[in-house]
Amino acid sequence: MLNAEILCVGTELLIGDIVNTNAAFLSRRLAALGINVYHHTVVGDNTQRLTDCLKAALLRSDIVVMTGGLGPTYDDMTKETVALHFGLEMECHMPSLQKIENFFNRLGKPMTDNNKKQALIPKGAIVFDNDYGTAPGLCVEKDGKVVILLPGPPREMQPMFCQEVEPYLSKFSNGCIVSKNVNIFGMGESSVENALCDIMKNAKNPSLATYVNDGEVRIRISALANTKKQALELIDPYIQQVKNALGSSVYGVDVNTLEQALVEKLSQNKLTIAICESCTGGLISKRITDVPGSSAVFGFGLCTYANAAKIKMLGVKSDTLEKYGAVSAQVASEMAQGLLELSGADIAISTTGIAGPGGGSTEKPVGLVYVGCACKHKVTTHKLLLCRNNNKQRSYIRSLAASNALKIAFDKAVELTEKSKNG
Amino acid sequence: MLNAEILCVGTELLIGDIVNTNAAFLSRRLAALGINVYHHTVVGDNTQRLTDCLKAALLRSDIVVMTGGLGPTYDDMTKETVALHFGLEMECHMPSLQKIENFFNRLGKPMTDNNKKQALIPKGAIVFDNDYGTAPGLCVEKDGKVVILLPGPPREMQPMFCQEVEPYLSKFSNGCIVSKNVNIFGMGESSVENALCDIMKNAKNPSLATYVNDGEVRIRISALANTKKQALELIDPYIQQVKNALGSSVYGVDVNTLEQALVEKLSQNKLTIAICESCTGGLISKRITDVPGSSAVFGFGLCTYANAAKIKMLGVKSDTLEKYGAVSAQVASEMAQGLLELSGADIAISTTGIAGPGGGSTEKPVGLVYVGCACKHKVTTHKLLLCRNNNKQRSYIRSLAASNALKIAFDKAVELTEKSKNG
Repeated sequence: MLNAEILCVGTELLIGDIVNTNAAFLSRRLAALGINVYHHTVVGDNTQRLTDCLKAALLRSDIVVMTGGLGPTYDDMTKETVALHFGLEMECHMPSLQKIENFFNRLGKPMTDNNKKQALIPKGAIVFDNDYGTAPGLCVEKDGKVVILLPGPPREMQPMFCQEVEPYLSKFSNGCIVSKNVNIFGMGESSVENALCDIMKNAKNPSLATYVNDGEVRIRISALANTKKQALELIDPYIQQVKNALGSSVYGVDVNTLEQALVEKLSQNKLTIAICESCTGGLISKRITDVPGSSAVFGFGLCTYANAAKIKMLGVKSDTLEKYGAVSAQVASEMAQGLLELSGADIAISTTGIAGPGGGSTEKPVGLVYVGCACKHKVTTHKLLLCRNNNKQRSYIRSLAASNALKIAFDKAVELTEKSKNG
Repeated sequence: MLNAEILCVGTELLIGDIVNTNAAFLSRRLAALGINVYHHTVVGDNTQRLTDCLKAALLRSDIVVMTGGLGPTYDDMTKETVALHFGLEMECHMPSLQKIENFFNRLGKPMTDNNKKQALIPKGAIVFDNDYGTAPGLCVEKDGKVVILLPGPPREMQPMFCQEVEPYLSKFSNGCIVSKNVNIFGMGESSVENALCDIMKNAKNPSLATYVNDGEVRIRISALANTKKQALELIDPYIQQVKNALGSSVYGVDVNTLEQALVEKLSQNKLTIAICESCTGGLISKRITDVPGSSAVFGFGLCTYANAAKIKMLGVKSDTLEKYGAVSAQVASEMAQGLLELSGADIAISTTGIAGPGGGSTEKPVGLVYVGCACKHKVTTHKLLLCRNNNKQRSYIRSLAASNALKIAFDKAVELTEKSKNG
């Protein structure tokens, strides 16, 4: 199996102005092709340091994937450095020059001389078209090594990699690694590992690993086989074993997000949902409407941040607010019931809580959140205690409260679907 | 001036499962201490490769900051590798062992043997307490070099770096670099550079650079001086020059976000705002309530995704919806007016548009968004055409529509404030 490394060029990465998402993206895609990645390096726009890093990379790896430094300005020097290293001349690539000229014509702006520089390539290089920018990507094959040069901006680099570089690289790929992710919510990583202990220990191919992100656990099941079909056949029985072991905490396989799982479940079963939010302040609505097509299942969202809004729009009683406080199971319940009536949706979800940093007390600490869930004939409330002592506390509590509410809604959608099947 | 490099250890980075935010964070903080960073490296949990990378780093740099591989499991080997490189024995650090025991006592869980491993340190190392986890940070000074070892999880690493590593590193820092960011919205990067061309060209210390992020431009003004005060004195006149050149497109200096600028402006002037959203689906409410203390200025948010919700909650006329369509200046205007009345807020903002990927037509393409802005005696509408042809299109359009709406609200708050001062 070949190995590759990723060499990202850009002073903006070294001063921390942008986060290097390119390295993670490229690593995932290379792994999917069965190409191992053992090193990431970031270096600035400096010819000597870049040359040194390129040399070190070529000693260790068969394929070096570089990003950045292909632009028009004087400090973009990636192509020139690679050409110099391999002793290649630079020459003008006419189709690229034509594309750049067309680009400026469309904009109605004059093309300056430094833009022509983007059409220069090391002699004999393979050119990858850039559909979202002016700098083409390049590939130099020499001395048994492959160097791939890609533009730095992710929105240019990602489509170029998927559409042009992957087909090119597939010739180096012996067999393929396929991964499936089982999505879990409501169990911590250690509980998941505990429940799957035997399965994980005995699995070699496929292998199982757990990952945590913002309160969600994912189990990644990866298999190596000659074909994608064979890999999937190795994976499938393990998905079933994981589902059996973890029950309703599993909400999907290869689902991007809880909100996507929810919207799909609602759509399939022609159910609708409405949301009213206090402490999450629009985050749940935002996450549902992130999903294309969510308008079919979601029409009414309210961010009743003020008590006046809870009373006026949802019919929460002043008495209830006074007696129990805005952050209470009673208010969550009245919010959800009021919303169910107002919206006519099948499921109405409410949140009220203390996101911090201020507003907490001994009795009602920061992180206390109630989620209400109303449907015909039934209202439930769910008490959450979410806590993290750092400066991201507020966003952590809000994000986890929203995820919990989405999972409660998902479970309710499953329940209603099963009821209607059985009824 | 000393230079440093960052060496992150973790297979999860190399397979692309997580993005390396640690490198960006550390780079920013080191730059603020006046320490140059010329290289980032990521390597997996493999002793040989880690040793090779450490050696290369120590040849190039005075200070090597490492993250990751301090945990309890067998594949965590960063400490051991550093100790071996410098010929140091490992010894038990009793205060750390005590802390780990206390941690497990609090959890009510037994401490396993592999957890004791976290209290082992290279002999003579400086220990940094970990307030958010069990693995302490370490610093080894030897042969004129400094190696700093930090835990991998950002929520452990970041507070440790700010509270303990920065005071330690300040002894190496000659002079300091201070940066101020001028926040701009509503101008593209090239227009900003054009307007500031002469200022940027002639500025050496401080230096000026532009950065773009999600449709916003920032100008970073960085000065090097002996003290922070002196650096700020160099920067201040440039902030004024930038403001003069860019006018109302500047919405703040060192403000994290548009929403924070808006909430601060509203709070200072005792104004309130309400939001109703169609295409942005709760995103504006979410962003406003991201800001602690936003409840003082924001009480009513609505996500009227369905026409029925626009009619029922905001009093939009069915006729208007039929005649002009939901995505129209007329509907945006009626939404904002209805919301102003419903909420009693000083400023009411509405959005309606086509976020895609579906739903567009020649007449009303994906990316067409109307923002309504109502205050007493006056309603304005703003037409936006937002466009990006890739798979992130939907989130891009929603994000930019929300940012535009926040800037429109900010400008209105400025206008109302000036009016009340003059009136």
